[in-house]
Amino acid sequence: MKILEKINSPDDVKKLSLDEMNTLAQEIREGILKRVNDIGGHLGPDLGIVEATIALHYVFNSPKDKFVFDVSHQCYPHKMLTGRKDGFINEKYSISGYFNPNESEHDNFTIGHTSTSISLATGLAKARDILNQNHNVIALIGDGSLSGGEAFEGLNNAGELNSNFIVIVNDNEMSIAKNYGGLYKNLEELRKTDGKSQNNFFKNLGFEYIYVEEGNDIKTLIETFKTVKDIKKPIVVHIHTLKGKGYKPAEENKECYHWHLAGFLDKKDEVNKQIETYESITTDFLLNKKENSEPVVAITAGTPGAVGFYPEFREKMGKNYTDVAISEEHSIAYASALAKGGAKPVLALMSSFIQRTYDQLSQDLALNKSAATILVYWGTISPMDATHLGIFDIPLISNIPNIVYLAPTNKEEYLAMLNWAYNQNEHPVAIRVPFIPLKSTGMKDLTDYSKLNKFKMINQGEKIAIIALGNFFNLGEKIHSKLKAELNINSTLINPCYITGIDENMLDSLKQNHNLVITLEDGVLDGGFGEKISRFYSTSDIKVKNYGAQKLFTDRVPLNELYKMFGLTENQILDDIKKLTNCKLV
Amino acid sequence: MKILEKINSPDDVKKLSLDEMNTLAQEIREGILKRVNDIGGHLGPDLGIVEATIALHYVFNSPKDKFVFDVSHQCYPHKMLTGRKDGFINEKYSISGYFNPNESEHDNFTIGHTSTSISLATGLAKARDILNQNHNVIALIGDGSLSGGEAFEGLNNAGELNSNFIVIVNDNEMSIAKNYGGLYKNLEELRKTDGKSQNNFFKNLGFEYIYVEEGNDIKTLIETFKTVKDIKKPIVVHIHTLKGKGYKPAEENKECYHWHLAGFLDKKDEVNKQIETYESITTDFLLNKKENSEPVVAITAGTPGAVGFYPEFREKMGKNYTDVAISEEHSIAYASALAKGGAKPVLALMSSFIQRTYDQLSQDLALNKSAATILVYWGTISPMDATHLGIFDIPLISNIPNIVYLAPTNKEEYLAMLNWAYNQNEHPVAIRVPFIPLKSTGMKDLTDYSKLNKFKMINQGEKIAIIALGNFFNLGEKIHSKLKAELNINSTLINPCYITGIDENMLDSLKQNHNLVITLEDGVLDGGFGEKISRFYSTSDIKVKNYGAQKLFTDRVPLNELYKMFGLTENQILDDIKKLTNCKLV
Repeated sequence: MKILEKINSPDDVKKLSLDEMNTLAQEIREGILKRVNDIGGHLGPDLGIVEATIALHYVFNSPKDKFVFDVSHQCYPHKMLTGRKDGFINEKYSISGYFNPNESEHDNFTIGHTSTSISLATGLAKARDILNQNHNVIALIGDGSLSGGEAFEGLNNAGELNSNFIVIVNDNEMSIAKNYGGLYKNLEELRKTDGKSQNNFFKNLGFEYIYVEEGNDIKTLIETFKTVKDIKKPIVVHIHTLKGKGYKPAEENKECYHWHLAGFLDKKDEVNKQIETYESITTDFLLNKKENSEPVVAITAGTPGAVGFYPEFREKMGKNYTDVAISEEHSIAYASALAKGGAKPVLALMSSFIQRTYDQLSQDLALNKSAATILVYWGTISPMDATHLGIFDIPLISNIPNIVYLAPTNKEEYLAMLNWAYNQNEHPVAIRVPFIPLKSTGMKDLTDYSKLNKFKMINQGEKIAIIALGNFFNLGEKIHSKLKAELNINSTLINPCYITGIDENMLDSLKQNHNLVITLEDGVLDGGFGEKISRFYSTSDIKVKNYGAQKLFTDRVPLNELYKMFGLTENQILDDIKKLTNCKLV
Repeated sequence: MKILEKINSPDDVKKLSLDEMNTLAQEIREGILKRVNDIGGHLGPDLGIVEATIALHYVFNSPKDKFVFDVSHQCYPHKMLTGRKDGFINEKYSISGYFNPNESEHDNFTIGHTSTSISLATGLAKARDILNQNHNVIALIGDGSLSGGEAFEGLNNAGELNSNFIVIVNDNEMSIAKNYGGLYKNLEELRKTDGKSQNNFFKNLGFEYIYVEEGNDIKTLIETFKTVKDIKKPIVVHIHTLKGKGYKPAEENKECYHWHLAGFLDKKDEVNKQIETYESITTDFLLNKKENSEPVVAITAGTPGAVGFYPEFREKMGKNYTDVAISEEHSIAYASALAKGGAKPVLALMSSFIQRTYDQLSQDLALNKSAATILVYWGTISPMDATHLGIFDIPLISNIPNIVYLAPTNKEEYLAMLNWAYNQNEHPVAIRVPFIPLKSTGMKDLTDYSKLNKFKMINQGEKIAIIALGNFFNLGEKIHSKLKAELNINSTLINPCYITGIDENMLDSLKQNHNLVITLEDGVLDGGFGEKISRFYSTSDIKVKNYGAQKLFTDRVPLNELYKMFGLTENQILDDIKKLTNCKLV
């Protein structure tokens, strides 16, 4: 790594010859491969954007000129060129895989969700103009993000700027998976006509436009960027790149290598399809409906892999599968209307990305009582980046009227809930798909979930009641056992199943022989499930203690540290109970 | 009203001659004017869409063919043609001003927020195709809604349909106020070229396209709609209409008559600018910053009138004012980036519409700790339509980390909070602008709001503490007085000021000589402010009772009924307190 070793800031890039930059590109690729092989991460998007990143730093002057990278998952080359190469490549977790202003002045925002770059850059440009400054503002967007509504809203506003504004559209012909939507047909037409087609989405919105076919050629990119530098209008530079460039498996299987787990260089990458998971039982359920000619429609918003909608499943589902592209808002409205129209929509979203849909959940879905099924994946306290936490879906969804939000605790319960959600026609139903290893009771769950808000009494005990929701039901079982073993207390254990309502009869009955109720939820406490239990008991003599995450954006904190920080370890909970009950237990 | 009297369903429209339909248009206009003059409502959009609505019902067969009207505030003619004319025109509140499936099978969804029609219609079309049905699906959009991201996401997905899908773009050259954004320049170009320009936003997204200059001519519209009926592709019919048509003041002042209060036919319409309101002191504040050459940027997302950003203000602000068009998501990202870029953004949104921005509040703003000021108007329990309730902003905003959400109770407090929010550089700050008549203490508020979560102790009493938030501080004062008068209790009265945090010291101190804490908030209880107080005290001996709205979509319920339903009348609260304290007060 001879050249990369010398690069400690973008200034060092500017000193390189073209040959050196081409060598640098190779070295950066090796760095990307090493990083992702070591700890997992985004591979294809970063391999494709190496040359453009070098050219951007060669032509523009960051941090005076301001870059905003969409999703920022394609920032790996940028990180290596802005003084973070060693940490990024060799230290496992010191440098994140996204923009992070705490790391560097070259990262203008913390970014991790899609379609925000143009909106953010428009604000930077307006601030510059108001303050009579004169730097460049450059948004880099691509890899599917253009279909998101926020990107369009930003383009629409930016199109009216009468000042410098540069959008680099990184067109690698892909979203995370295949691209969907009319917009991408236009990009294809522009590629095929070398940018000359009269049909030009960007020009329509008020932008100047340049097309660069050789989006992985440093020389061409430098020449192009030089022509747009300091321009006084909004312009789109549409560059055609190769996702996964330089690593053959990633070039050949772009979706599989968009993001990858560690260890791929040594191992086979095939998913072991023998293992049963919540994802696989979901796709089996959907395929069964399809095979029975039911009007099922499985929906993803651009993230099929994250929810187990693998290519084989998509192919089998045929017209009963829709990828609406990265457009989470639309996906909810679409699912709602499918239900109203008599179809059976099952929409799978990740907890962090369902945040994009509050208003659609409320207005398009809940207000209309559309019987769509929404599966929420990755809802859990996790060591993820601050941009991808899965702890906010409970307050987000459960405080909206009319929605039934369910928290299954095992395979049979999940299937029973999914069946009920799918078959009924009364309620919008969301299911928080367990984010724990698949657990089977081996016995079919015969619960009638149409009796809303009926909690399950798992063990009828006394003194202490444990209400343990979804992923944390296991934790509830453990606390229950320890109370028996250590304090000889036969505590009550409840699986609430419903996040959106309270079993008032059961909770009332606890007043007879309980002093303390604890709630356990795998999400943020504020606005969550436990607070509703606290409110219920707030005028009674029962004490309540809520367990869950604090209202914080934690960033790549290991799970055991998070649990300690939030007081969620078994010992901490036991200690709390001992303290709370010392003076209280009858 | 001779012809309209005979119209009891769309079938009756189909029997009319062209002359009769033209007369019907006049009668419908009279009906619109009467309705809005009687009870207020949307005037301009409905006056402009009369002819198109008649033509739609003449050509298509609702409810078999499915209409989805965007925002649905332009549904007045539709209501009159679908069996609801008497209720709509003559009964004050029996028929709503929006689509309402409970009223009629001709209203396919409950709709009130913008930019949803195409997304919803796409789902209806897909359901039709999956079920092998063959009706038409028609989305009617216009009046500014096209700039919303959800509309674009829908267009992008619909552009790939290979089946019937008709979008009527009602282009009246206006949003609620003036149109902003690059997209509207393209609409203008299409109008000027009679639809022939090569630059065509809709074609780029995969739609067929027809332009109709005579958008208020029934004959032309019928002919056009006949040509697209039963088409097997997605098509846009771009019709050029006149907002406010047929009522001269509305034609001449389109923004003012977009929505209007009752009584305009008899009165002068000038806003009495002498009256000081929270809106006027806000605009005075902003103008003052502008006059001092500060980098202030006042921002609205297409609803300037609703937040007091009247034309005179906009003109004076000049480049320090931005209407980003209907694009609430973008508005948050834009404000965040303005703050990061060193400007001073103050964004004004309505409580109901800020629902569109959860993810932007979280990711673009809060995670980045951008010191933008967000003013939340119309946050209150109200007799509004179910689509426009202002009760969800507290759970929406206050459970996101890093945001400071403030609830002022009077003019001086509001100004002090606004000043602090504007001047500081540490926190994203939202302010829930009081939705009560302006109240002045006459004394400048010298509170240092940088000391976060410090509640104000208004009266240090005993036994009972009243924590009365924002709009409901008045109610707290009344309860306090009644407790004194009726029970001779000197209760503690607290103005919490902060919605997003808890003054643990003050709350702890209450434990010494209080048995009961009541919380009062002008919003939904679930996920709200009071539940956090309940959680705080849940392991103590203090009883807590939370007052606020139930988790319900109420629809045009008079305020006094709502208060009774929610147990919020003074007498109900006093009765509760008596019951709760009978056995408890020391």
